[in-house]
Order: sequence, then C-alpha cells, then structure tokens
Amino acid sequence: MREILVIGVGAGDPEQVTMQGVSALNRADVFFVLDKGEVKQELVDLRAEILRRYATAKEYRVVVGQDPERDRTTSAYVEAVDDWRRRRADVIAGMIATELGEDQVGAFLVWGDPSLYDSTLAILDDIQARGELAFEVEVIPGISSVSTLAARHRVGLNQVGRPIQITTGRRLATGWPDGVDDVVVMLDAQTAFTEHLDQDAVIYWGAYLGTPDELLVSGPVREVAAQIEKVRAEARERKGWIMDTYLLRRPKS
Amino acid sequence: MREILVIGVGAGDPEQVTMQGVSALNRADVFFVLDKGEVKQELVDLRAEILRRYATAKEYRVVVGQDPERDRTTSAYVEAVDDWRRRRADVIAGMIATELGEDQVGAFLVWGDPSLYDSTLAILDDIQARGELAFEVEVIPGISSVSTLAARHRVGLNQVGRPIQITTGRRLATGWPDGVDDVVVMLDAQTAFTEHLDQDAVIYWGAYLGTPDELLVSGPVREVAAQIEKVRAEARERKGWIMDTYLLRRPKS
Repeated sequence: MREILVIGVGAGDPEQVTMQGVSALNRADVFFVLDKGEVKQELVDLRAEILRRYATAKEYRVVVGQDPERDRTTSAYVEAVDDWRRRRADVIAGMIATELGEDQVGAFLVWGDPSLYDSTLAILDDIQARGELAFEVEVIPGISSVSTLAARHRVGLNQVGRPIQITTGRRLATGWPDGVDDVVVMLDAQTAFTEHLDQDAVIYWGAYLGTPDELLVSGPVREVAAQIEKVRAEARERKGWIMDTYLLRRPKS
Repeated sequence: MREILVIGVGAGDPEQVTMQGVSALNRADVFFVLDKGEVKQELVDLRAEILRRYATAKEYRVVVGQDPERDRTTSAYVEAVDDWRRRRADVIAGMIATELGEDQVGAFLVWGDPSLYDSTLAILDDIQARGELAFEVEVIPGISSVSTLAARHRVGLNQVGRPIQITTGRRLATGWPDGVDDVVVMLDAQTAFTEHLDQDAVIYWGAYLGTPDELLVSGPVREVAAQIEKVRAEARERKGWIMDTYLLRRPKS
C-alpha cells in the first residue's frame, strides 16, 4: 500500500526538524510540492536546504504540481477555501496516482506543525473519502510558529490554570474572544491587534520566526502597535511577503 | 554571565527532540532536575535516555533538587500554585547559585513544549525579578503533547478559519467554552469530557503520547466516553500514573 508522510519541519529554522522528522525524510521516495506561483523564493530555498541537509539516505524525486488559485475576491471565506481545497485535492490525487508507485512512500513537508491551520491533512482525507486511491497517512508533528514565538519571547502561552485561544486575524478583528485573556493570532493580514488598543494588553509579536530575518517586538499593545505596523509594512515591502503571529495577553479578568 | 537553557524535549518519544534541542543538550554543563518524589520512574528513565543518547559532546553533571510539595487539599487552586511556585523558585535559585559557575550553562529539560502549561519559565522570571541572581535564558521549543495527539489521530486542531481553545479539565468541567467548537484539554484529572455527552461532539483522546504505552481512542464522545474512562482507569492503575490529553470537536455552531 502507498504511504504518505506529512512531515512538520518547523517554523523556518532547519534546526527545528526533529530526529523523527529526519527519519521520515529518509524514508520518502517522492516529495510532493505545490508550486504556489508566489515570490516566496526563500521558502523554496529553505525547503531545498532541509532536503539537502537531512534526506541523505537514498535517492528521491521532487514532484511539483500547480497549486490552483484561491478566490480572494469573495467575502465567502469558508466556501472559497472549500472550493480551493477541492481543486487542490484534484491536483494532489493526480500527483499521487501518477508519480507514486504502489509500494512507495511519498511525503509532504509542512511548515510549522501539520495540526495548526494547515490544509494538507484535510485534503488527504478528502482524497481518501473519494475511494479511488488507497494510501496510509503518517503525521510527524513539527515545531509550530506559535511555540517558536513563545520561545523567542521566553514566555508561556497560558497564565496559571487559564485557557488560551488560537484564532485568526479575521476573527480577532470582530472582537476579543469570550472567556479568554490570552489570545494567539495566526493568519492576520490586517493587523487586527490595532482593534484592541483599548485593552490593557501586552503583545508579543514575531515575524519570519526561526529565520535569519526574524523580527520580534513586545510591549503594551497601546504603546507598540504603531511600531509593529511600521516594522511589518517595511519588512513586507522589502521581502515581498510576510508571515507573522502574535500573543495578546491581558491581565486575568 | 550564567546561561540557562529551557529545552523542550517532546511529549515522550526521544525521537521528538529537535536538532536545535540536541545542540542545546550539548552546550549544558549542568542539568537541573527536581525530584518530584513520585512514582514516575519511567519519566526519569526517559530523561536519562535522552541525555545518554544526545548529550555526547562533553562532560556534564546532573543536579537533583527536592521539589516542594503542592497543597492539593485546598480549593484555592491559583493561590496554591502560586505558593508552590514561590517555594520551587527558592529551591531552583539555590541550585543555580551553588551549582552553576559564573560562566557555565545550565539546562532544564521540559516535557512537551515549555510554552504550554509548564512553570519553568515563570519560575525563572520570578528568580530574575528578585534581583539576587543574574542569568540569561534561552528557550528551545519542543513538540507538545497537543501536536502529538493531533499527529497520532491524523487530524488538524482547527476547522477551516475557526478558533481553537486550549484549556484545563478543571475549566471544561464548568461548561463548554464560549465561542469555540474545538477544545483541547490538558491537565484533566477528572475526565471532564463526561460532562459534555449532550454535545454532538467527537473526541480524540490520547495518553502516554509518544511512548511505547501510548493509548488512543476516538469517536463520538457519547459513544466512547465510557470506553475512555475504563481504559484510562486501567492504565492508571497498572502504571501508577497517567498523562492524557484530548481534542473535543463539535460541528461548527
């Protein structure tokens, strides 16, 4: 039976790969990559560096598919993602069917941890549910950007005995989540923390975590929000892309 | 200046240590351990195995301190934890002051990830705040039991564009958290999921994650709750301790 490995390779530092990840990288016959047609050449290079450094035990092939475009013009976010995921599943199913032998091992490298805001597992589920292609899936957990953020700021994500919410910028923009004082925000294209300057909160912000371009800012959100917006805009302009995340912490309410 | 490394070593499988973790293990002159006076000999052995396997570059010492007892009889949870943390800080400050040379590197090994429900960073903060002992802290993120749980069940923690809450059993027992459909529960001594059998939720449960004794159960919480309670009680009886975590997921509300 075909086997698919979904390998979390950490937030951006090749040294965040686990020993388990290294073993998995050395089991793969084929690495599947979706070409996102974007300018993130650094991420492409970083992925190549991870393979070069760790996948040394045997020959492997890298198969690149064309990532379908997502409709970013619609306000129907979930539907747009569902549709895009379906088309993505078509592409990936095709790659597995044509490029992976019946007894071979394929692998997807996932930035951060495959369990956090990544679509690879859901897409593989969709393909399996269609019933046309049989394969087993194994997941190798990775160091998430959230763990990396906390580590770089040397803080815990939770206060003693208190909950944490991990959410999106889109949702944070609509209001501070109920029942929590510690909020981790991913996928924030709109600097939603600026909607919460009325809160007595501290922000721990980071971008390009784990990479040589890493940026860190922390402090009372009221005082540092403008600085983060400026640093973020300049970095985005300079590099052409940004990936950032942050923890907002207010005193126990 | 003294340096303290706080190293996340994963949920229980030595192979979850990262390359970064291995480098850090090889920089330490002294490993600090608190003897919790408990029966978790397996965790002691596992820690020793991690050192034996990876800390091979130089000589090191292991210094064991006596962990103060926590008052588990009081209902004042946060106060009891605060008091215990203060006494713990006393013990650790003493160990660092007497056992770590001015130019040496000390290390704490933390199960899972230092940012999730672990007190090491807060204790080091407390000690630094006292101003009597100067040291720098570096944190190496680790694979959490939460990431491991999701990986072993091959599921994501979030639904598309939706938030996740990470909370404690104590809190889940008081009600399903507001505003979320995906809840990860840690530190649950009371099987709080049994309070939510009225929910149309699926549970992904795991114990001793990453170890040879790993246990996994998943399914509609109504249908598998009794099975988890039974498996959990038997394992706890057999091994004398249990560490478990779970994801409760209900359809988008």
